[in-house]
Amino acid sequence: MAAAAKEGGLGGAESTPSTPLATPVATPVSTRSVKWEKDVEDAAGALDRPLLHKRCTNTTSQMAVVGANTCPIESLDYEVVENEVYNQDWRSRGKLQIFQYQALKWALALFVGLVVALVGFFNNIAVENIAGFKLLLTSDLMLKDRYMMAFVVYIGCNTTLAAAAAALCAYVAPAAAGSGIPEVKAYLNGIDAHSILAPSTLLVKIFGSVLGVSAGFVLGKEGPMVHTGACVASFLGQGGSRKYGLTWNWIRYFKNDLDRRDLITCGAAAGVAAAFRAPVGGVLFALEEVTSWWRSALLWRTFSTTAVVAMVLRGLISYCRGGHCGLFGKGGLIMFDLSSRQATYTATDLAAVMLLGILGGLLGALFNYFVDRILRVYSLLNEKGARSKIILTVTISVITSCCTFGLPWLTSCTPCPPELAGKCPTIGRSGNFKNFQCPAGHYNALASLFFNTNDDAIRNLFSAGTDREFGVATLLTFFVTVYALGILTYGVAVPSGLFIPVILAGASFGRLTGSLVGSISGLDTGLFALLGAASFLGGTMRMTVSVCVILLELTNDLHLLPLIMLVLLIAKTVADCFNKGVYEQMVRMKGLPYLEVHAEPCMRSLVAGDVVSGPLITLSSVERVGTVVETLRHTGHNGFPVIEEPPFAAAPELCGLVLRSHLLVLLQGRIFTRGRAKASAAEVFRTLAPFDFAKAGSGKGLKVEDLGLSEEEMDMYVDLHPITNRSPYTVVENMSLAKAAVLFRGLALRHMCVVPMTQGRPPVVGILTRHDFMPQYIRGLYPNTIPR
Amino acid sequence: MAAAAKEGGLGGAESTPSTPLATPVATPVSTRSVKWEKDVEDAAGALDRPLLHKRCTNTTSQMAVVGANTCPIESLDYEVVENEVYNQDWRSRGKLQIFQYQALKWALALFVGLVVALVGFFNNIAVENIAGFKLLLTSDLMLKDRYMMAFVVYIGCNTTLAAAAAALCAYVAPAAAGSGIPEVKAYLNGIDAHSILAPSTLLVKIFGSVLGVSAGFVLGKEGPMVHTGACVASFLGQGGSRKYGLTWNWIRYFKNDLDRRDLITCGAAAGVAAAFRAPVGGVLFALEEVTSWWRSALLWRTFSTTAVVAMVLRGLISYCRGGHCGLFGKGGLIMFDLSSRQATYTATDLAAVMLLGILGGLLGALFNYFVDRILRVYSLLNEKGARSKIILTVTISVITSCCTFGLPWLTSCTPCPPELAGKCPTIGRSGNFKNFQCPAGHYNALASLFFNTNDDAIRNLFSAGTDREFGVATLLTFFVTVYALGILTYGVAVPSGLFIPVILAGASFGRLTGSLVGSISGLDTGLFALLGAASFLGGTMRMTVSVCVILLELTNDLHLLPLIMLVLLIAKTVADCFNKGVYEQMVRMKGLPYLEVHAEPCMRSLVAGDVVSGPLITLSSVERVGTVVETLRHTGHNGFPVIEEPPFAAAPELCGLVLRSHLLVLLQGRIFTRGRAKASAAEVFRTLAPFDFAKAGSGKGLKVEDLGLSEEEMDMYVDLHPITNRSPYTVVENMSLAKAAVLFRGLALRHMCVVPMTQGRPPVVGILTRHDFMPQYIRGLYPNTIPR
Repeated sequence: MAAAAKEGGLGGAESTPSTPLATPVATPVSTRSVKWEKDVEDAAGALDRPLLHKRCTNTTSQMAVVGANTCPIESLDYEVVENEVYNQDWRSRGKLQIFQYQALKWALALFVGLVVALVGFFNNIAVENIAGFKLLLTSDLMLKDRYMMAFVVYIGCNTTLAAAAAALCAYVAPAAAGSGIPEVKAYLNGIDAHSILAPSTLLVKIFGSVLGVSAGFVLGKEGPMVHTGACVASFLGQGGSRKYGLTWNWIRYFKNDLDRRDLITCGAAAGVAAAFRAPVGGVLFALEEVTSWWRSALLWRTFSTTAVVAMVLRGLISYCRGGHCGLFGKGGLIMFDLSSRQATYTATDLAAVMLLGILGGLLGALFNYFVDRILRVYSLLNEKGARSKIILTVTISVITSCCTFGLPWLTSCTPCPPELAGKCPTIGRSGNFKNFQCPAGHYNALASLFFNTNDDAIRNLFSAGTDREFGVATLLTFFVTVYALGILTYGVAVPSGLFIPVILAGASFGRLTGSLVGSISGLDTGLFALLGAASFLGGTMRMTVSVCVILLELTNDLHLLPLIMLVLLIAKTVADCFNKGVYEQMVRMKGLPYLEVHAEPCMRSLVAGDVVSGPLITLSSVERVGTVVETLRHTGHNGFPVIEEPPFAAAPELCGLVLRSHLLVLLQGRIFTRGRAKASAAEVFRTLAPFDFAKAGSGKGLKVEDLGLSEEEMDMYVDLHPITNRSPYTVVENMSLAKAAVLFRGLALRHMCVVPMTQGRPPVVGILTRHDFMPQYIRGLYPNTIPR
Repeated sequence: MAAAAKEGGLGGAESTPSTPLATPVATPVSTRSVKWEKDVEDAAGALDRPLLHKRCTNTTSQMAVVGANTCPIESLDYEVVENEVYNQDWRSRGKLQIFQYQALKWALALFVGLVVALVGFFNNIAVENIAGFKLLLTSDLMLKDRYMMAFVVYIGCNTTLAAAAAALCAYVAPAAAGSGIPEVKAYLNGIDAHSILAPSTLLVKIFGSVLGVSAGFVLGKEGPMVHTGACVASFLGQGGSRKYGLTWNWIRYFKNDLDRRDLITCGAAAGVAAAFRAPVGGVLFALEEVTSWWRSALLWRTFSTTAVVAMVLRGLISYCRGGHCGLFGKGGLIMFDLSSRQATYTATDLAAVMLLGILGGLLGALFNYFVDRILRVYSLLNEKGARSKIILTVTISVITSCCTFGLPWLTSCTPCPPELAGKCPTIGRSGNFKNFQCPAGHYNALASLFFNTNDDAIRNLFSAGTDREFGVATLLTFFVTVYALGILTYGVAVPSGLFIPVILAGASFGRLTGSLVGSISGLDTGLFALLGAASFLGGTMRMTVSVCVILLELTNDLHLLPLIMLVLLIAKTVADCFNKGVYEQMVRMKGLPYLEVHAEPCMRSLVAGDVVSGPLITLSSVERVGTVVETLRHTGHNGFPVIEEPPFAAAPELCGLVLRSHLLVLLQGRIFTRGRAKASAAEVFRTLAPFDFAKAGSGKGLKVEDLGLSEEEMDMYVDLHPITNRSPYTVVENMSLAKAAVLFRGLALRHMCVVPMTQGRPPVVGILTRHDFMPQYIRGLYPNTIPR
């Protein structure tokens, strides 16, 4: 099996050996037949999802439904290209400059923390004030028994806010819709989807999230905060705009994918830290869920970023406690103080908790399944254009409003507990025990959950010592509604996080279970709510350590740790039997070429040579300008092997790898010679500055059309030595593909050269890119040998 | 510079091309002149520390002073050797067996947690009872005014316990001395120092730690718990003893370095979790400090292990609360409940905390410096034999006893605070407010710190609302004494952790600072003590996230998080300006060939070919038995490149890499043929079982002397194909050495083949091992080109 596959793959490469001196490619070559570095043009097309591929031809970005426009995908290159130019630049720096570089790196990370904290704070204040105002307005009308008017106002506010959010997303930045965590996860895996971290996305994410949460949807601002954090980091890492002169020369040291990746990791962690006020949880979330690579230095820097977030938020909140922030009181920035719970539990309690874990795992897996289905349905609707997106969003908003306003009418009024005199019902302010339509001294239990912000509803569910506040029927109604609305809402075109729906559903389910088993278990129902939330989080997101720490930081009671851990372990294990985590599922669904930790089993029976196909286009170390230009023009490839040839070497040998972007910069610098002659890095720097070689932002940078070279220049020669990466990572062609994949992901590469096993062959026989490790692509090459 | 270096290095390799058919090496070759896979015999010798190297020739294991006998060091091989035998074995397994494998992996991890929790619990009960009994006995005598007798009893108990601990370490398991964290760190970096995880080490570590802590030394049981956890994991991962028939066949799947590494990571995390009752802290400690590689699957499994630890400990402690555990009350298993502290702080408080961070960083760096110095002095003393070790230990014990018993006499008695009537002084039981020589109604502040177990002293220092309990003079005396004793104690031959001395010194320093700045800062002195401990931990160990989480789990108050983070960040940053973390320093000092995350700058100007030197000994894919045996006999190398030659290939090509251990197994199986013929994996399995190829424990396994082949057999041929790893990781010889180092460490390799850049050379020109990336070795090769 393996042998047959091998021959098929290598045969192609061998029958079309690369010409030692690259011949100009006269006609545009089809990306399907010429294969090597085509991750620019067909990374998405390589995947077997024609639906997504078709959508890519349409420019109205219908993919926004699932949060991003997947069309132009580019791979990121986390390998530092240590060519002569780079080395010369580094060598020329003094100790002071290196210190500056280090200091600046830290300053940037801390600054990201500051900005993310401010954004998170703004977000919370805005939501609390808008949603609070809306609820107060409605409550006032309810108090005056003008129920119909109250409903009209309520639904009017909600639909207006929802429509505004959807319009922002649909017209300005489609990439801002959805959670954003899958996209950040993909970015940190090395996939740069178009405009996913653009400034417009950032703005729409912030304001769209405020509007969406205020509109009363069953969605959270936590996922969007992660995306926001990543966008802020990306924006600050750009060092301002070159166009408006707002840049510094030294920021060029950060203009590479590696430093950007590190900063964006910090930003994502800061986002979690700001959303949950959980600095350690933020670091762990970044580590466990978001990043694909990790360095110990990063732990330290990420930690500093989240520490800044925690401290700034703390300061701002204590300022707000003085009543300077409108309706923003103890609400917002969820922090549930559950301390002083009982710290002992019996075997029966443990059994109840285990049951909760199992059920949470099952319901979590089911949630993922439904989310996947609904996203596929919505993507068809959203494909029809921006208007269709807005209509869908408004429809869901109306359904949500009807549920939250209508369902409380089904329940009868409950008399206030006598010990809470003065605190129940809460009239004319946000809080527990909503009176809704009830007479004085009574409250509506369902309204206390529905007719509230999500944060307040969670706080109510988690509250301790209130075993009798919510009945079984109330909790069941709320759970079913929230579970269904959570699934229905996720696909709409507003920034929407999954944490809050999952926590809401989990907490109500947990409290429900607690009420049902109350006779045999001595645990508080509030604690059951917390454990229910943990089980749902474990069941949908499949995170363990980070969810655990986030919940601990939210509740501030470490005595709960063993129970939370137990329930998470069980829920994750159960759910893993059915499907993948919700974020992984979404990454797959969006067709992003994500590199998994483990290579597919089918790759074990293949070797590296099996997936590279010819003809391989290489460049000579001193190449004719015209050849280079033609090569760049007629291929979309991003990296080209450079071959050292006579007279510079006795026999053709692999000189290294050159990047398209560097080639374009060098050509624009016009460092040409009449004959074949070498140039040094110093000569390059006579015309060009190191800054010129810095990697431009996503979708920017020189294009081959911008060069405008004359006929005479086309006949001259250009020396590629100064810009050639002399140490590209290589594998021998008979290397197991599975091991090559481990290497590729482990080192976070974009290109990997394949060198021949035997003598008498060209010094490089192919290039492996991300594309070549995609199971779909491999299955396309070997449909018979690889089942499934 | 680079060019010169390159020629020098490659010249050697080129002038002595490897013979296609390995010629038998007739005479033992010097490991200095023949270089490729010599990590067995001279990994330690490769380092430029003749002191350590000299010690290795001595068999009395004098290295025990620094915790391990570094002599026989072997590299670990974390690459799964996917040869035909392995693949055949895997393919033959059913789904059930794969499920069994997965389930067993989990069961083992959870079982490790259970055992470590039990060991940790035993450890604490034993210490609390022995030390408690000793203190009660002395206190009783003090109450009767028999001070001299009390001193004699006190010092007698201490020296006896100390001598017993030292004797255990000196005679039974020298590797058990010291903290053990550096050795575990080195093991997880891929260095297997002899007997570091042996069962005898485990036993001595447990009992030696109990005796040492009970003896009143200024040392902790936390570091040893980490080592204990690793030992437990290693022991359980062996699957019992083959010698006594206590093994299962399926445990062979875990008999490889990769699975062992994962299990030992779980064990180390479990150790921290058991020591501090900090499950999340344990995971983070393993991630941040101990391991060199991390996989997300591991996070999840490690977390489960520590969850088991937390739950088991919780159950056992609640059992003990019923008074079933002797003197073990609320003491032991330190848990400081600092909740209900004030949660607000001013700018002045922040300034005071920052000052504390700076001073903590400075004093921490100084601590590391002194520990390094004292270890060097002690290593000279300990070199003289076991008796010398015991004498040193007893001397330090006497000094400690004199300090702890004598210094309290210098201080005058303090009247008990009136509100604590009945609780002060604590007579006849362990606790705060020791009366010592004081009359009724008074207590001796210094005795409350000195004349107590370390855990109780820390609890006193951390206690809130007791601003007046300890005066400035008391705290200063205690701080200076503990700081000095902590340094003096670390090198003695007992299992000794650094956490407790550092926390003690830091807490007293913090409380001292708190007392001094009390007028301008409103923070509690107990909180200052906690922050002081954090600053010292940051300053010595340079951990951030894990220390932070451990302290949070110890104190159970998340409101302290921002302050702890701030102080840790400052302390680490300050201390990093002076020296390395204490564990890294010890790894270096022990001469363990540790692979750092970042390649040394000097490696940037070298290429892979520069450090490999000839002659390279290779084997043919079907080789004469005699040649194989001779090669094995006369080299200590662990991996040999296998060359495919005519008639099996048109031209010589790299077939793969074969391991010494596999060669020995194959030879012992006597799967020989008269002529050059191929054998399949199935044929191998007719004689051998897959179990036979499982990696034996450290220092075990077949030796070439055990083979006993006849003359006739020596002239036969053996086919190496079934045991050859067909996909060894390779680099091209002109690959930058720095990048090769990143690759080597990133993939956790033991061997890396160097392939030629140009045509007409042998298919493999050298092998890189851990040894070749050691800065000392490189500096030895290129003394002129690389400064420092």
